[in-house]
Amino acid sequence: MPGRLKQVLLGDPLHNKESAHQRLSNPVALAVFSSDALSSVAYATEEILLVLVLAGTAALELALPIAAGIGLLLLVVATSYRQTIKAYPSGGGAYIVAKENLGTYPGLVAGASLLVDYTLTVAVSISAGTSAITSAFPTLMPYRVEIAVALTVLLALANLRGVRESGALFAGPTYLFIIMLGALVITGLVKVALGMTIEVPAHGYESAAGTLTLFLLLRAFASGCTAMTGVEAIANGVQAFRQPEARNARTTLSWMAGILLFLFVGTTALAQFSGVQPSHTETVISQLARGVFGSGVLYFLLQVATAAILVIAANTSYADFPRLASFMASDGFLPKQLRERGRRLVHSNGILLLTAVAILLLIVFRGDTHRLIPLYAIGVFTSFTLSQSGMVVHWLRSRDEGWRSSIAVNGLGALTTAVVLVVIAIAKFSQGAWIVLLVVPVLVAYFAWVKRHYTKVELRLRIAKGDPDVLDPATHEDLHNHVVILVGAFDRRLVRAIQYARTLRADSMEAIYVDITGTQGEKMRRKWAEYRIEIPLTVIDSPYREIIDPILRHIRRIPRPDRDHAITVIIPEFVPEDRVDFLLHDQTAFWIKQALFVEPGVIAVDVPYHLSSDLARNTE
Amino acid sequence: MPGRLKQVLLGDPLHNKESAHQRLSNPVALAVFSSDALSSVAYATEEILLVLVLAGTAALELALPIAAGIGLLLLVVATSYRQTIKAYPSGGGAYIVAKENLGTYPGLVAGASLLVDYTLTVAVSISAGTSAITSAFPTLMPYRVEIAVALTVLLALANLRGVRESGALFAGPTYLFIIMLGALVITGLVKVALGMTIEVPAHGYESAAGTLTLFLLLRAFASGCTAMTGVEAIANGVQAFRQPEARNARTTLSWMAGILLFLFVGTTALAQFSGVQPSHTETVISQLARGVFGSGVLYFLLQVATAAILVIAANTSYADFPRLASFMASDGFLPKQLRERGRRLVHSNGILLLTAVAILLLIVFRGDTHRLIPLYAIGVFTSFTLSQSGMVVHWLRSRDEGWRSSIAVNGLGALTTAVVLVVIAIAKFSQGAWIVLLVVPVLVAYFAWVKRHYTKVELRLRIAKGDPDVLDPATHEDLHNHVVILVGAFDRRLVRAIQYARTLRADSMEAIYVDITGTQGEKMRRKWAEYRIEIPLTVIDSPYREIIDPILRHIRRIPRPDRDHAITVIIPEFVPEDRVDFLLHDQTAFWIKQALFVEPGVIAVDVPYHLSSDLARNTE
Repeated sequence: MPGRLKQVLLGDPLHNKESAHQRLSNPVALAVFSSDALSSVAYATEEILLVLVLAGTAALELALPIAAGIGLLLLVVATSYRQTIKAYPSGGGAYIVAKENLGTYPGLVAGASLLVDYTLTVAVSISAGTSAITSAFPTLMPYRVEIAVALTVLLALANLRGVRESGALFAGPTYLFIIMLGALVITGLVKVALGMTIEVPAHGYESAAGTLTLFLLLRAFASGCTAMTGVEAIANGVQAFRQPEARNARTTLSWMAGILLFLFVGTTALAQFSGVQPSHTETVISQLARGVFGSGVLYFLLQVATAAILVIAANTSYADFPRLASFMASDGFLPKQLRERGRRLVHSNGILLLTAVAILLLIVFRGDTHRLIPLYAIGVFTSFTLSQSGMVVHWLRSRDEGWRSSIAVNGLGALTTAVVLVVIAIAKFSQGAWIVLLVVPVLVAYFAWVKRHYTKVELRLRIAKGDPDVLDPATHEDLHNHVVILVGAFDRRLVRAIQYARTLRADSMEAIYVDITGTQGEKMRRKWAEYRIEIPLTVIDSPYREIIDPILRHIRRIPRPDRDHAITVIIPEFVPEDRVDFLLHDQTAFWIKQALFVEPGVIAVDVPYHLSSDLARNTE
Repeated sequence: MPGRLKQVLLGDPLHNKESAHQRLSNPVALAVFSSDALSSVAYATEEILLVLVLAGTAALELALPIAAGIGLLLLVVATSYRQTIKAYPSGGGAYIVAKENLGTYPGLVAGASLLVDYTLTVAVSISAGTSAITSAFPTLMPYRVEIAVALTVLLALANLRGVRESGALFAGPTYLFIIMLGALVITGLVKVALGMTIEVPAHGYESAAGTLTLFLLLRAFASGCTAMTGVEAIANGVQAFRQPEARNARTTLSWMAGILLFLFVGTTALAQFSGVQPSHTETVISQLARGVFGSGVLYFLLQVATAAILVIAANTSYADFPRLASFMASDGFLPKQLRERGRRLVHSNGILLLTAVAILLLIVFRGDTHRLIPLYAIGVFTSFTLSQSGMVVHWLRSRDEGWRSSIAVNGLGALTTAVVLVVIAIAKFSQGAWIVLLVVPVLVAYFAWVKRHYTKVELRLRIAKGDPDVLDPATHEDLHNHVVILVGAFDRRLVRAIQYARTLRADSMEAIYVDITGTQGEKMRRKWAEYRIEIPLTVIDSPYREIIDPILRHIRRIPRPDRDHAITVIIPEFVPEDRVDFLLHDQTAFWIKQALFVEPGVIAVDVPYHLSSDLARNTE
């Protein structure tokens, strides 16, 4: 990217020293890390109702008990994670906790689950946010994929600029959503308590359309569990908090859990007491808001806030995915490029990777939220279970103060989330959960493959202890260097190449010319004689007009004791004054270099001749 | 392309000596070079009728006089080209004739016109052929662009294999078309002469729907002139004939003109006498064949032959476009890559370029023949005019035997084609001819730009006469070589790089390490001391985590008398055992090389370390 454009899009580069300042205050951290969890309130209640209504409107009575159960689960998980933060103040994501306490493979499973889930968070939230926009402006409907992709790119840019700026950018909508939805729940419930009717449309469902089976109840529960996605975000991101990180993170986690519990259970209660029914044309939240607020300014504000928080919920993943990917890259399970921090001290490559995969998901699923949601909760509950199980082992080993009660808390967490995981996997299997159950093992295998590769390379490249003489000049003083000049044309490029070759300490030197015409070789020999060049010229006939293969064959036949003895191949090139000009010259030199790169002991040396160089001026 | 696949698709490579054998016998040459001209009979009559019918069915009576006029024009042009072949036995395309006799720019205009026309020939013929296929199998209609692209790719492959094979491949359909259409014309005209009625459908046109204006007549004439495209092909391709090339080419040209004249005028006469009317659902040829043959085997054979010759008409361009492009590239007006001959002695790059542009046209115009045809005849008449004018100048200069009559022939040719060119440009301007009138000057400007570039480069690279000492060792013996080793990590790559650096005759040597962490630099210094490396180490702090810029700044500050004095930058790299592994390692070395390539006097040297090398084994 040209420097100027980069400057405008990303801002000035940040100095390493500015790293410590890139921390978030608690209120900003709450906005950054909980938009994912909180935004799911916008659809979790509706997902429960959509399943229950299959058994008729009478079954909708079961929504509140299910929501209460999920609320209880939320309390268990949040309490468990408070323990995790205490034990892992440097950031205790499921990956780290599972790896340290349960072993490498459970850690990799947790890592894969989280990476999948973060990616889905982006796709689901952006899709749902786009739906909110296209519901408001139906003429935009045909462009929903384009809008979703554009929003993803905007998010990526905001995050490439750095986490502080994006935190400030996103705090507003999160708080607006909390206030507006809170106001809806309180006003609505007060109205219900005062015996006032909340007017909601009827959608013509029957009172008892089907049988209420246990499986249906479990599916409703599994669907409602999407409300829990994102709860782990704070525990993974402790290092983004101000000091003391652990205490700030624990406090923020408690706040988030409390707000989420209130909004989710409150919304579901209001839905049940008002008798609202799910619809395919209007969201449950929208119906409730119209019933409670009327279709005025308050309704409009809530809809805007809902759309905004859905879009920026994706931001939680932009905070967490690159961080987790960099942890895993540091451990050698992902390509090293994911470890580096870019111009603005963020893990730019992780951001770009997340963006690419999310855009792919948006395009493949045509930005359809309801097709993405069944894939969604599997990953997060896998990581919950592994993380809490890991904490149980942690307390068993450490026996820190209060380890018995900690085991009880995390053990309960592990047990409940494990049960829920099995329930979700079974209840949603055929609707898409199978994809995740397939992708996670593939990712784990990939991590293992990457690790094996890096380990092998490191072992081969490492200088063994007790080998201090490996760099002693005496050990290589008898190495030879054979210099070969590739001749393409008799011109100033060649002059420069010969000039350079003469500065080398060559044991032997020759020039080779590949003649593909059957006539040019003789001309080259005459030129060679005319200019009295002392370097011997070899002309290689190539009647099949190949260039690279004859060169390789010739080089391989050069005698040398072993492949430590270098063959330096000098390739005369010239540097056009303008980048466009490159296309006018053939790329043979490039392909020759590619071929020579993999030849043991052969070193390809480009000797560029600059059209605008001093040399050209000097010798003109 | 992997060697095995190439082998299967293209066949064995051909030896330079096999070049002379790749010549065509006259019957095969007729098929190769005239399918373009002959296939236009399949639509030229229809194009005339489609214009005339705008003035009502009564105006259709004018078709035969117009066709006769075009036939006369054909005789004039063919006679002119016979002269050209005589004067330019080595291949006298409009480009060469115009350039030699009229000057560079007229030559370039002719060249541009022909290149445009060849490309259009591919697009038009493939579109029309695809239409014939999709008319027979209407279910294929939605895939017409895909079919057209697939056919183009098949043609490209056939031509990449070589001209002899493609000639044999295409002779069959051409002769089948000549025989079947000839049979239709003769049988039909005999039936007419015997007073038998040929039954053709009525399409409900009125007898006098509009006014017959002069402009309409000219448009009908211009549309009919598409029958003339491709007549120049033989004169351009004299070198593909067997010896004596010129005589064989002249004979073949006469045959082609005779056959074309007979088929075109005959078809138009039959159309007029039978009272056939143009339709948008069935071609004129198809209506005539059904009327004359009935809907039996003969009808079916003609339709198949028509479809086949339309598709392979594109082959004329595959013979001519790469040849013309290579002429122009040899003259420096097109990139040099178009000059080279590939594995099978054909100009592979020209074939690939033609294929790419034709596919682009097919996609942009959605494979619609009728939208492409108005662009079509401009180029060919431009080249006719320039070529014939050039011949007039040629005879004036050479005064060869019979030059006066030759001037008369070519002068008449130049004059008539010039008039026709103006007529076509005006009559078809708004329907698409303007695109060609725009593209040709752009191409000419591009040719001139390419030529300027090559001339400039050649002047700068040339070793001037009277400068025989430029390669005398004495002139550069005082040049220095400063060696810089870029250190990335302290491992065996570095060992190999240092080992290699010690084989160079360096005036000064240093190692540099860019520290982007603020902590690694110190560790590197300690390693350096521990291993007692005599090369001084410079650690460059880069708190903004840039790598390339600090290296460039450091290198630019190295003192040297001028830029002839080399700075050799050694970049330690390693060669993974497997190509997939490349992605796991960052591409910093690649970008460093890119940056160094344009630094005057700086020579980047990749020192690869092979994981599987002897060195690794030796020192393990």
